[in-house]
Amino acid sequence: MSSAPLFGHVALIGIGLIGSSLARVLRRDGLAGRITGCARQEETRAKALELGIADAMFEDPAEAVAGADLVVFCTPLGAYEAIAKAIAPALSEGAIVTDVGSVKAPVIEMLTRHLPDTVHLVPGHPVAGTEHSGPEAGFPELFDGRWCILTPVEGSDPAAVEKVRAMWTSAGSMIEVMTPAHHDTVMSITSHLPHLIAYTIVGTATDLEDDLKSEIVKFAASGFRDFTRIAASDPVMWRDIFLNNREAVLEALGRFSEDLTALQRAIRRGEGDKLEDLFTRTREIRRALVDAKQA
Amino acid sequence: MSSAPLFGHVALIGIGLIGSSLARVLRRDGLAGRITGCARQEETRAKALELGIADAMFEDPAEAVAGADLVVFCTPLGAYEAIAKAIAPALSEGAIVTDVGSVKAPVIEMLTRHLPDTVHLVPGHPVAGTEHSGPEAGFPELFDGRWCILTPVEGSDPAAVEKVRAMWTSAGSMIEVMTPAHHDTVMSITSHLPHLIAYTIVGTATDLEDDLKSEIVKFAASGFRDFTRIAASDPVMWRDIFLNNREAVLEALGRFSEDLTALQRAIRRGEGDKLEDLFTRTREIRRALVDAKQA
Repeated sequence: MSSAPLFGHVALIGIGLIGSSLARVLRRDGLAGRITGCARQEETRAKALELGIADAMFEDPAEAVAGADLVVFCTPLGAYEAIAKAIAPALSEGAIVTDVGSVKAPVIEMLTRHLPDTVHLVPGHPVAGTEHSGPEAGFPELFDGRWCILTPVEGSDPAAVEKVRAMWTSAGSMIEVMTPAHHDTVMSITSHLPHLIAYTIVGTATDLEDDLKSEIVKFAASGFRDFTRIAASDPVMWRDIFLNNREAVLEALGRFSEDLTALQRAIRRGEGDKLEDLFTRTREIRRALVDAKQA
Repeated sequence: MSSAPLFGHVALIGIGLIGSSLARVLRRDGLAGRITGCARQEETRAKALELGIADAMFEDPAEAVAGADLVVFCTPLGAYEAIAKAIAPALSEGAIVTDVGSVKAPVIEMLTRHLPDTVHLVPGHPVAGTEHSGPEAGFPELFDGRWCILTPVEGSDPAAVEKVRAMWTSAGSMIEVMTPAHHDTVMSITSHLPHLIAYTIVGTATDLEDDLKSEIVKFAASGFRDFTRIAASDPVMWRDIFLNNREAVLEALGRFSEDLTALQRAIRRGEGDKLEDLFTRTREIRRALVDAKQA
């Protein structure tokens, strides 16, 4: 196709698993005339250029965004504020700013405070990932068939939302629009709590005596293994998710803890009927997932 | 080969996922001259005969074991005691009795009490399974490349242990021998605690309001999904595991709960360094699994 690309210039702030996968999509589908990237480490910048997924790489985010039509935050959430402050004076008028973060409400509040009124903020969250990190770990099919949640803010320019939607549709994602607060509640249960639990149980195992630990590895296939993949996810990214979605995560964790205590009590008292009843109900959710082709 | 089979007559008490998979192995490898089975439900007995995985099916376990050289308990643990009492008078002198149960010490103590001295008890636990149940769910490759743990009791006849080992080796399993108590401790962490946690978190989600629940299903791929497969395991089998391995499970659960509370505290106080430290350590376990080819 010889038509103009969706964006003249895309700037990716952070080029790890998600950022580099998006860069590969932009390249594959010809969605960007020019791709610039920003990474703190020299090694990462060199790797991105070597992989050919960016035309230029910068250490300073302000330099990366100069002249960009679309700016995508692809860093852990904890880096957002400093980046927002740094790029605010350098953003082009009318530029679209989006992100790929796993928490929305508090992040949007902060971004709105720092970014100029002349840009369009269209927050997003591609619900995709692997337990691997870094620009080499990315691949263009990462978003294919996965949900991408957009959480436009009040007064978002519909044309800007449409362009971000078009990019993720091209990546193969299914688009869902919801409010930031609702996004954070849903993710606290489907994603954040499961990760917290997986990190905890794998942590409990790492604290065992060494001889027992080697047997945990040996017999991991009996259930433990499924948790280790989740608990191998990027530590900094997940630290920031829990710190930023604190209220929703603590609420979900409170419900979980109550349920766990009730189950512990049933085991201690030998109340088999209560156990069987719960285990029968949980099977239903799996069936619902299979029916929804999410299994 | 025209040599005599490993066992003249094998009786399988219970012919669900594990029993029917073992039956298929016995058939495939010609390990049994005759296979009898026992199932409470008429429908299961008819299905086993239709599948050709048993030569005769009985409702009464005593009839199923008459004349058997090897008797295998393949039912949930809660059914063991009644079966042991029922078959005790019908067991052939010198018969080998084994099982596939996920808890060993208390079960062995009970079986030893009920079975006659003239049989050889060789408890076993093939560490394999799927979330599916019933004789149609079985397949002969289920045990291939998986561990099978044998927990011989004091005074076990070495020849009997060798024959049980030969059967599981033929199934493709790697054999590990350990004491019953040690088995129960290792499994409480690698298998029972992960299942308990998965059942709990999926249970927590099933108790949510309906509209939120439908979104849990929709966005399950973000972490929750991995838990639903585990939490779809057989309810009665797992009820009995928790009731029988109560002490070890409560001990593992105690450690887990302490760790979860510490993590909850770190989130509430915004102690990012503690979170990052744990999340970095848990990555190591995944690496150990990958190195051990268990990932």
